[in-house]
Amino acid sequence: MDQEEQNKLKKAAGIKAAQLIENGMVAGLGTGSTVRYFVDELGRRVKEEGLSFTGVTTSVRTKEQAEGYGIKIVDVDDVESIDLTVDGADEVDKDFNGIKGGGAALLWEKIVATNSKKIVWIVDQSKVVDTIGKFPLPVEVIPFGAGHVIKTFEAKGYKPVLRLDDSGTPVRTDEKNFVVDLHLEKIEHPQELADDLIHTVGVVEHGLFLNMVNTVIVGAEGEPKVLTNPNK
Amino acid sequence: MDQEEQNKLKKAAGIKAAQLIENGMVAGLGTGSTVRYFVDELGRRVKEEGLSFTGVTTSVRTKEQAEGYGIKIVDVDDVESIDLTVDGADEVDKDFNGIKGGGAALLWEKIVATNSKKIVWIVDQSKVVDTIGKFPLPVEVIPFGAGHVIKTFEAKGYKPVLRLDDSGTPVRTDEKNFVVDLHLEKIEHPQELADDLIHTVGVVEHGLFLNMVNTVIVGAEGEPKVLTNPNK
Repeated sequence: MDQEEQNKLKKAAGIKAAQLIENGMVAGLGTGSTVRYFVDELGRRVKEEGLSFTGVTTSVRTKEQAEGYGIKIVDVDDVESIDLTVDGADEVDKDFNGIKGGGAALLWEKIVATNSKKIVWIVDQSKVVDTIGKFPLPVEVIPFGAGHVIKTFEAKGYKPVLRLDDSGTPVRTDEKNFVVDLHLEKIEHPQELADDLIHTVGVVEHGLFLNMVNTVIVGAEGEPKVLTNPNK
Repeated sequence: MDQEEQNKLKKAAGIKAAQLIENGMVAGLGTGSTVRYFVDELGRRVKEEGLSFTGVTTSVRTKEQAEGYGIKIVDVDDVESIDLTVDGADEVDKDFNGIKGGGAALLWEKIVATNSKKIVWIVDQSKVVDTIGKFPLPVEVIPFGAGHVIKTFEAKGYKPVLRLDDSGTPVRTDEKNFVVDLHLEKIEHPQELADDLIHTVGVVEHGLFLNMVNTVIVGAEGEPKVLTNPNK
């Protein structure tokens, strides 16, 4: 699939998800290239249909995009809870386990998800996989002592790589932490891995989102497909 | 025990611990009022005895104090491991489970402890307790969504209080996070509590240091007492 075709599928998924936002809702707005299309469509609905809702964002860049459309954005702590969060995902398997954080916003994304009544992911079909892990699993790590965390991951065979930007400087999250990507190829036991990672001193969060999502909207040839999690 | 008497006990414990540092060692230097005496004594040994070692510090303020004595301080990631770390504790029980973080440096303290071959705590006798928990348990929390974390703790009966400074502003750790103190009075099952806290999204670390310490030097009437952990 070429880039242009993939973008068409992302856009279709984003537009479909935007139909779920209703007047008066508190909506969580995720981060990433598919979410950009979703927020663009919300902006269109605000302007053309008079849609009015409150947003909670998972990154500075989504906040700026949404505010550019006149969408009212509040802090996650200014709302009792979030009615519905729409976010992207880097991979999702048949058990609705996913990897997120390719965009380095996994911590805020997980905090917003944790405070959401309902979660929808929008992806193109290339993100739906049998076993997660081919996409490198992002782990947010405190810079202080990060070298030792990376060595620990190496010793466990997790194949960690400190994420760098184009100039070779470590990428910093919105919380100024590092991102270490684990090149695992296949994650057969995601719950065990999640437990191990979160117990590692220096790890703030990881990109495993296990059985958190209610619905996945998949941009696919023709119409987007909707997958509903039976266990939520 | 009045403040002056308590300070005498702290100082005695700090001086005793300073004897453990040898030429050429990589030593972890903790944080807190008892550790200040320890670092003062190291400073004296550097000046009067020509003691030479490399320090790794757990807070900006200990770094400044140590460098004031001409002690060479390096980053935790610049050493392979730490030979011995001397730190304080806010409470320690008979099973060598402790609470740390009264000074808001628990994250760096735990990272340094995790990378230390041997750990010594120096305390005055008021810190040795039957059951930990009377000292409020510090939890380091990401500011984004911290209000929801506090509500979750309230619902669980953890009696959380966001730590404020004298001007009523939230205290920030060296990593710019909040500190939430849990007023539990008694922690009967520290391992279960530790597991619950570390799995709470938004929690970076907590102040439970369970069976990590090798030796506790207790400033007590007469001579400091040395408690050795049989399980380490």
